[in-house]
Amino acid sequence: MSHNTFGHLFRVTTWGESHGPAIGCVVDGCPPLIALTEADLQPWLDLRKPGGSRFVTQRNESDTARILSGVFDDGNGPVTTGTPIAIEIQNEDQRSKDYGEIARAYRPGHADVTYQAKYGVRDYRGGGRSSARETASRVAAGGVARKVLGEGIRIRAGVVQLGPHRIADEAVDFDAVYQNPLFAASEAVVPEWEAYLDGVRKAGSSIGAVVALEVTGVPAGWGAPLYAKLDAELAAAMMSINAVKGVEIGAGFGAAELTGEANADEMRMGEDGDPVFLSNRAGGILGGISTGQPLTLKVAFKPTSSILTLRQTVNRDGEEVDLRTKGRHDPCVALRGVPVVEAMAACVLADAMLRHRAQAGR
Amino acid sequence: MSHNTFGHLFRVTTWGESHGPAIGCVVDGCPPLIALTEADLQPWLDLRKPGGSRFVTQRNESDTARILSGVFDDGNGPVTTGTPIAIEIQNEDQRSKDYGEIARAYRPGHADVTYQAKYGVRDYRGGGRSSARETASRVAAGGVARKVLGEGIRIRAGVVQLGPHRIADEAVDFDAVYQNPLFAASEAVVPEWEAYLDGVRKAGSSIGAVVALEVTGVPAGWGAPLYAKLDAELAAAMMSINAVKGVEIGAGFGAAELTGEANADEMRMGEDGDPVFLSNRAGGILGGISTGQPLTLKVAFKPTSSILTLRQTVNRDGEEVDLRTKGRHDPCVALRGVPVVEAMAACVLADAMLRHRAQAGR
Amino acid sequence: MSHNTFGHLFRVTTWGESHGPAIGCVVDGCPPLIALTEADLQPWLDLRKPGGSRFVTQRNESDTARILSGVFDDGNGPVTTGTPIAIEIQNEDQRSKDYGEIARAYRPGHADVTYQAKYGVRDYRGGGRSSARETASRVAAGGVARKVLGEGIRIRAGVVQLGPHRIADEAVDFDAVYQNPLFAASEAVVPEWEAYLDGVRKAGSSIGAVVALEVTGVPAGWGAPLYAKLDAELAAAMMSINAVKGVEIGAGFGAAELTGEANADEMRMGEDGDPVFLSNRAGGILGGISTGQPLTLKVAFKPTSSILTLRQTVNRDGEEVDLRTKGRHDPCVALRGVPVVEAMAACVLADAMLRHRAQAGR
Amino acid sequence: MSHNTFGHLFRVTTWGESHGPAIGCVVDGCPPLIALTEADLQPWLDLRKPGGSRFVTQRNESDTARILSGVFDDGNGPVTTGTPIAIEIQNEDQRSKDYGEIARAYRPGHADVTYQAKYGVRDYRGGGRSSARETASRVAAGGVARKVLGEGIRIRAGVVQLGPHRIADEAVDFDAVYQNPLFAASEAVVPEWEAYLDGVRKAGSSIGAVVALEVTGVPAGWGAPLYAKLDAELAAAMMSINAVKGVEIGAGFGAAELTGEANADEMRMGEDGDPVFLSNRAGGILGGISTGQPLTLKVAFKPTSSILTLRQTVNRDGEEVDLRTKGRHDPCVALRGVPVVEAMAACVLADAMLRHRAQAGR
Repeated sequence: MSHNTFGHLFRVTTWGESHGPAIGCVVDGCPPLIALTEADLQPWLDLRKPGGSRFVTQRNESDTARILSGVFDDGNGPVTTGTPIAIEIQNEDQRSKDYGEIARAYRPGHADVTYQAKYGVRDYRGGGRSSARETASRVAAGGVARKVLGEGIRIRAGVVQLGPHRIADEAVDFDAVYQNPLFAASEAVVPEWEAYLDGVRKAGSSIGAVVALEVTGVPAGWGAPLYAKLDAELAAAMMSINAVKGVEIGAGFGAAELTGEANADEMRMGEDGDPVFLSNRAGGILGGISTGQPLTLKVAFKPTSSILTLRQTVNRDGEEVDLRTKGRHDPCVALRGVPVVEAMAACVLADAMLRHRAQAGR
Repeated sequence: MSHNTFGHLFRVTTWGESHGPAIGCVVDGCPPLIALTEADLQPWLDLRKPGGSRFVTQRNESDTARILSGVFDDGNGPVTTGTPIAIEIQNEDQRSKDYGEIARAYRPGHADVTYQAKYGVRDYRGGGRSSARETASRVAAGGVARKVLGEGIRIRAGVVQLGPHRIADEAVDFDAVYQNPLFAASEAVVPEWEAYLDGVRKAGSSIGAVVALEVTGVPAGWGAPLYAKLDAELAAAMMSINAVKGVEIGAGFGAAELTGEANADEMRMGEDGDPVFLSNRAGGILGGISTGQPLTLKVAFKPTSSILTLRQTVNRDGEEVDLRTKGRHDPCVALRGVPVVEAMAACVLADAMLRHRAQAGR
Repeated sequence: MSHNTFGHLFRVTTWGESHGPAIGCVVDGCPPLIALTEADLQPWLDLRKPGGSRFVTQRNESDTARILSGVFDDGNGPVTTGTPIAIEIQNEDQRSKDYGEIARAYRPGHADVTYQAKYGVRDYRGGGRSSARETASRVAAGGVARKVLGEGIRIRAGVVQLGPHRIADEAVDFDAVYQNPLFAASEAVVPEWEAYLDGVRKAGSSIGAVVALEVTGVPAGWGAPLYAKLDAELAAAMMSINAVKGVEIGAGFGAAELTGEANADEMRMGEDGDPVFLSNRAGGILGGISTGQPLTLKVAFKPTSSILTLRQTVNRDGEEVDLRTKGRHDPCVALRGVPVVEAMAACVLADAMLRHRAQAGR
Repeated sequence: MSHNTFGHLFRVTTWGESHGPAIGCVVDGCPPLIALTEADLQPWLDLRKPGGSRFVTQRNESDTARILSGVFDDGNGPVTTGTPIAIEIQNEDQRSKDYGEIARAYRPGHADVTYQAKYGVRDYRGGGRSSARETASRVAAGGVARKVLGEGIRIRAGVVQLGPHRIADEAVDFDAVYQNPLFAASEAVVPEWEAYLDGVRKAGSSIGAVVALEVTGVPAGWGAPLYAKLDAELAAAMMSINAVKGVEIGAGFGAAELTGEANADEMRMGEDGDPVFLSNRAGGILGGISTGQPLTLKVAFKPTSSILTLRQTVNRDGEEVDLRTKGRHDPCVALRGVPVVEAMAACVLADAMLRHRAQAGR
């Protein structure tokens, strides 16, 4: 991962600031001859885009992806050509306003202070480059990655914990996720969670959450020792998402409390002649390589740092100030993080697929 | 991270199998003129090496690092020359024996089955490449990284949870770590933990654990958006360590339960004119860039998968077998993971230092 | 160099096809606080753009660069922020027409046949991705690189051989280059060369050429052994330009005829206490590292492959056909290659500057 | 290419100095299940090793390669396992002596002055890291690459110009190369060349040369636009070899004198249904992608800089001195460069094979 590029063979470079004219990405290394149009990308972008419910920012963006290169229709419909796919999304609702206080003060919990420390300058309009708006580019790239992976690989995420409220592992239902405005992985919790999040929202506050991911259909053998372990690549990809503070694979932190007997997944022979596992504490990865079982991981999101409460901070003139972050914010940034988690998983897996094919020849 | 190389500018390539003639690493990109001898590396290797107590494997290895290149004494003592530093560690106690059953059967919880699936072949002697023995190379590289970082940056880790037993965050004392054979970050817990781990060991079982890391002295500004975020790099580095299943930065998964008010660290002006933070839920990183506060993270290790209990598994001939993994194993692999966690942090930070210097010029 | 990205720290990713809606690039890793506007890029693009004289293609493109990200004006004029700089250039004169024959036949000397072999599909409109139009993106990136390098480093190229006509090394005058439509590095040759190239053009033919490059102001110490040698990086960058078939540094192929006495540049002490060289057969590079002398290299361009003569070829249906390549072509593609050679050198040197700063701390 | 690593998927990292205890390399990313023993590497090393004739350095090295990892014999003979292959070569004849003058003075034409400028220190013993001794590691890695490529791909190089003496293209006979001590690509020239080089040698002088390379059996489709062009990768690899000052593909600099009619290779249909070319001015590469024709390139080597003549130079104390470089030197360093050119081509092609397989799936 090199600054604004991720992936080794399926490589995604993103660019753009929250209040600039546009954001976008370049997807390089995509295999050729994959059917691809903007209609393949838009549904994923629509899941992430703002304004969909009262639980997300009211910024008004259509998040329309436009493909500028890398796709060609030679008579049988548009397909990838193997050359870089540039995707662009216009910023449509970057409100011009007086950024006066924000331009100088560092919002607590935001990257304002660190960008200033690193670069000596920052685009303070809407968070600039550190805005979660950038994740739209990731979702677009993830849409391409899904096409590379094909329909046999199913990537699904959902909110499994909202602040103090959790969905038990055995109750997780990924089919429910996009059926409710909270992206909750269970219909049962929705009324209670809605009431809870309404309370948070009306208080001008915010709350953290945990997103779970499950990927089925990944064959055994993807990933590679030692520093390109599939879990290491996934962890980096997830940790690069705004507001993420933790990643765990399979049993994760829970594995710290397990004995070897309880943790190590036993095996029997499956009907197709491949090993099957009697449990999946490993989360589908052993030694950094996929086992053929579902990949499972969880991602912890911190609460949105933009809240209405007055907070102590400093500004770049070295003055101590108190700051209230007005604006159009998500009470729980993890909600719109769900399609982003899926997209990052898709990109990591597409890359792993190509890398495996390179070394192993299949 | 590319297969067996990690780092971008401070680059470490490791090689070697558990029962081959030797293991080692090549450290490339090291700045020149840094005083370095084998004596700088050995203390760290001694902390990780086997046989130090009854709580770790009894394999008998001196883990003596030999520097083969990249260091030159021009009259003022050996210094790095800017060229690659090759470090080699002989394997001394790779017992020749009949690997009969292990050669064919896949040990549950190990990478045997996935290496076989990926490569169609595996060096089954002592786990081959997937053995934790490889982490000695990381520790040697970490010793070089510490010299690059200098004494102002202090990197310390310790076990803060052993199975069900935890040390409260406020009781963590990193000074205690290398004073007890459990690498526990508190003297107070040692008697109880020793008794507990003796029980695990005598039962031929194993247990998971959590290792905490704290790094002080990192200036504000290291790391970089977006995919080279310092937390993403650290997460990948930690997740690449054998048996690691989870990583969290600062408040980590705990942040999922926090409100924005409770999570976002407020700021005031420090006496030296730099911002100071009134708390450190961020773990020293905002927007992927260091804040100047201590870096804090936790790493979850699963229990050693090699246990004496008979377990159900399969072999490469497609037969279902029951397997007991004899050998010289660690009852808690996380213990010797402590210096490895430190070493990986050192390498990531040395890389971040060089990358920051490249872009920001200081 | 990874498919469509080049550079390690100063990284340029380009995208776009000849007849798509636009082309562009993303420049990542640029140091912050460098004054940059579109006006800094346009003069270089104007030198490369088509339609400037009868000796270049008559395609009508303004080649207007638009910066979409990575630059921010915080009151003192626009400066780089350290985040990715996206630059976009609209395609304005991609003529809609019937590509009938070209769509199926492989133009001799072009990449049609190899793209088809590799990808099973190709965007045949105007050469698609393999069109020299892509080099506009390189020139834009080179404009950014020049700002990073600063005014102390002067990068100049020019045509020193046009088919059979050569300018002697001692007659090369880079100040002449942009004063004549042939980008010839000597005013004296212009009348003869114009007459010659008019003949080539009117015959519907084309001719090869050699472009020389000189860079002054590079300090000693840039570049690095062994595979990141400055000459290796420059060679790869030049060889990646369309139509380039050869690169030589300093004495180049001429060095094959020299004795050690004639080749190795002797040294004396300069007035400022640094070594000075009594000659520069090395072209400013020894052991892959800059000496402080001018960098000198030469690049051979093959003739434009699009000519009016009927040529034997095949098509993707496996038929043998005879093809005449009509269109708006450069009689000597090397002419517009001059600013491209300069741009690639600028990018390689900006990258080398950052890499050296990373490792050596200055 | 990153300092001391080259390749993207088939990655080679080399280390070691001329007079250190050993040199070596780590080959990462090698496909599994390829039969490999030290006996596969030694013949190539023997071709490069010193002491083979009066025309090469008399340093006495057996250049015995030892494989330390990445190969395992599971009953059917040793095969690669997909993990890193560490190869080590002991230095056996690094003579201890007083380096007095060389330790301080910069030998003209050598990297002494630039290493000192870059790093502030250098291992002056036998040229340290900049010694051509390092190329033994490349040759070992090339031996692995040849096994990856298989026997269908034939890689052959030879000297085609020795100072003023040239072998005409049509007289080049690669079968002759390893049958004569000059590695000349023609038996006919050997007597004259031997006499010539004896004269050079006895005079304590040296001479440059050109090495030609031909690779047959490369299928159409390897390489990739734009910055990973096969010619760009080859050019970088060749230019990274000690003493190389120029690289040309196919017609190379000669293409600058050709018209489009003379240069662009025409095509007809071959019997197997693939296009065949009526000439090969392209050197087997169009648009950076292999055509299926033989790859042809030439590499210019400068003369050995170590000569017996007294030369003007300076030392690191800033004094002007006159220096005669005694020692055991090659009168024409290009001779032993022949197997190095082959090895670098093998590594680049193995990498291209894997990259193509990754993207195109075959």
